[in-house]
Amino acid sequence: MIELLKGHIIEAKSFGEPEITENGYIAIKDGSIQGVFSELPEVYRGEPVADYSNHLILQGFSDMHLHAPQYPMLGMGMDLPLMDWLKAYTFKTEARFADNDFARETYRKLAQELIDNGTTRVCIYSSVHTDATLILMEELERAGIGGYVGKVNMDRDSYECQETTEESKHETLRWLDACERFTLVKPILTPRFTPSCTNELMRWLGEVSLERGVFVQSHLSENKKEIELVKKLHPDCEQYWQTYDQYGLWKDHTIMAHCVHSDEREQQAMIDHNVLCVHCPDSNINICSGFAPVRRMTERGVWVALGSDIAGGAQLPMLQVLTCCLRMSKARAIATNGADPFLTVGEAYYLATSAGARYFGDKDGFAAGNMLHAVVLNDESLPPNTRPLTVKERFERAVYLSDDRNIVAVYGGGRKLK
Amino acid sequence: MIELLKGHIIEAKSFGEPEITENGYIAIKDGSIQGVFSELPEVYRGEPVADYSNHLILQGFSDMHLHAPQYPMLGMGMDLPLMDWLKAYTFKTEARFADNDFARETYRKLAQELIDNGTTRVCIYSSVHTDATLILMEELERAGIGGYVGKVNMDRDSYECQETTEESKHETLRWLDACERFTLVKPILTPRFTPSCTNELMRWLGEVSLERGVFVQSHLSENKKEIELVKKLHPDCEQYWQTYDQYGLWKDHTIMAHCVHSDEREQQAMIDHNVLCVHCPDSNINICSGFAPVRRMTERGVWVALGSDIAGGAQLPMLQVLTCCLRMSKARAIATNGADPFLTVGEAYYLATSAGARYFGDKDGFAAGNMLHAVVLNDESLPPNTRPLTVKERFERAVYLSDDRNIVAVYGGGRKLK
Repeated sequence: MIELLKGHIIEAKSFGEPEITENGYIAIKDGSIQGVFSELPEVYRGEPVADYSNHLILQGFSDMHLHAPQYPMLGMGMDLPLMDWLKAYTFKTEARFADNDFARETYRKLAQELIDNGTTRVCIYSSVHTDATLILMEELERAGIGGYVGKVNMDRDSYECQETTEESKHETLRWLDACERFTLVKPILTPRFTPSCTNELMRWLGEVSLERGVFVQSHLSENKKEIELVKKLHPDCEQYWQTYDQYGLWKDHTIMAHCVHSDEREQQAMIDHNVLCVHCPDSNINICSGFAPVRRMTERGVWVALGSDIAGGAQLPMLQVLTCCLRMSKARAIATNGADPFLTVGEAYYLATSAGARYFGDKDGFAAGNMLHAVVLNDESLPPNTRPLTVKERFERAVYLSDDRNIVAVYGGGRKLK
Repeated sequence: MIELLKGHIIEAKSFGEPEITENGYIAIKDGSIQGVFSELPEVYRGEPVADYSNHLILQGFSDMHLHAPQYPMLGMGMDLPLMDWLKAYTFKTEARFADNDFARETYRKLAQELIDNGTTRVCIYSSVHTDATLILMEELERAGIGGYVGKVNMDRDSYECQETTEESKHETLRWLDACERFTLVKPILTPRFTPSCTNELMRWLGEVSLERGVFVQSHLSENKKEIELVKKLHPDCEQYWQTYDQYGLWKDHTIMAHCVHSDEREQQAMIDHNVLCVHCPDSNINICSGFAPVRRMTERGVWVALGSDIAGGAQLPMLQVLTCCLRMSKARAIATNGADPFLTVGEAYYLATSAGARYFGDKDGFAAGNMLHAVVLNDESLPPNTRPLTVKERFERAVYLSDDRNIVAVYGGGRKLK
């Protein structure tokens, strides 16, 4: 079935300026993009049109790192140092997801808020709980959100959330087997981070990843104390990334959140193995992790996308994460006296959309062959203009000022979800 | 007439932890606060109660630095360097306020958005236009917003907005005479900043300020290039603040926006003369001005309050400015390796409320004698909780996550405005 969307189409085709098609059309067939056209081709005449004339059609957002069970603690404990915050809030909160009813209620609301804000794909952490993880997958799929979901593994120093190594293995297998039924969401192995997993568990996860062809997500070089701790735990490894590499977890499509303090060698290891670095600007500032070298990494070839990292990040809407990314790139520019120039709106838009979408096999922009993931913005409620604005100006302004009220339609996986 | 507000009352009584009265009452008489009570005193029994039980009652916000005519360019041109941004957007935008109808439409919307977001008092810049300035004052007063409004003076290097010195003087007097009729808003002299005013104009403004007893607002030490420029223009002054001081503009209740790069001597001059420093965190990061030493200034006795500084700042809601202030204080903590610890939510709340309210003669918190300025937050829509939250936790979370939809009532100057 053919459908057409009409509006001002804004594509992140590269890490740079967005490509704009004014009053254009996106043609989809059974949800799959056929092309973007400034004039409607003859072949599509008479097909049904979703008319978003004078609205802005952006790509759907991909949130490539967030912790679903931390949704209840969003915006809380932000004055605490990282370790106190983890003990006072994080582990206690995550432990509550032993309760399936609470998980259902929370994850349904989370999924709705994601869609309301135009996030159509995620790479997301659950808790250690297999059942709650399956509930999270059900709720995401019900809302039409695609991506990868990980039952967290943590058998060391994990307070209320700790599993035994045997439990962790057993539950991981039970979970993987139960995932067959999902179509939009897939499992991803999720050793929380090196300090919370024994070597035995890490080794076993590497084997499972290989045997079952399942991707891996974890954390890397987020803050200096964590890096010191990892050094102590692994005198056998020169660098943090090697603690994953030695167990077969550092490879194509492995996701590493943060990488704030990764040096050039660690960055090169990402490039060499096609590891995705997920930059989480709001988390980095809230937890005082540092100013990630996003432009440097991106320009030298590291694959970088964006994540909200709730609840280290206190902002779920990716539009907020995008503008936070811009602001944090300016913090880095200030801290480096301009040696690392800040990111432009177009560049951060690319990180929030196409860079993440590539993880799911998409080509950049609204490329033919991609399933449609789109966000329609109505910017009429924004302040009065002194002159007619260009679409690029409207886009940049809408990125800064919009909230879910401006998001009047959301398409994910080719379907209209809002 | 006696009225009572019931709810969880959160007061910024000092630069520190907020004082919380759970299920308490604020009693007002003809809009003036009589007291805050955890139990309702006998004398008030039977008086009408605005029942905000289980809601959070915060103090109203004071936005102590913003540019009203830049409202149409909110969130625009944020990728441009400061001088290009000023030329491409700011001066062209402000020049449009020669059109009174446009001014009326824009300022009415601005005033509404301020109230919707709980900002009940402002110190605000208009443009050079006398009529548009009076329209701004009318619209603020109509919405119930109090504070100070300045017709901008700029007779040097000001592109589309430049006045002659004579025009600037003549229009300033015409404007001041026309301000008699306002009750909530008062005029404040507003030499834009040293580079845009001739010495003759500055001297004249200093005389008018003295003769008429009108306060002064301007900009100070926002970024390094500006400071260099001022040095060139004023080889007679060792420091930037002296370019105001030598013309009688540096004195009690003078407002200086930014002060990002003020050194200890300049800070001491603020303390000595009871000058208010307005910290504008979002503007500071958007324009890459730097990380202001807010804690240092506050703790050594500089009077610091908060401003949105639209449109250098891209966030009008003071709740967003407050959380941006927290994040920028963390940027400073990172940049100083922790030597300047970040601000707590309570501290930033104080800067956003009581510190600014003091400019209008208020005592800290919901003090008896203050007219009521209050914001009622309903946090029911926020994520599900894993356990009952304390009021302090709810307050901190609401500060991070609320928008105008959570603000269910606003009181300003003793009246209900929303």
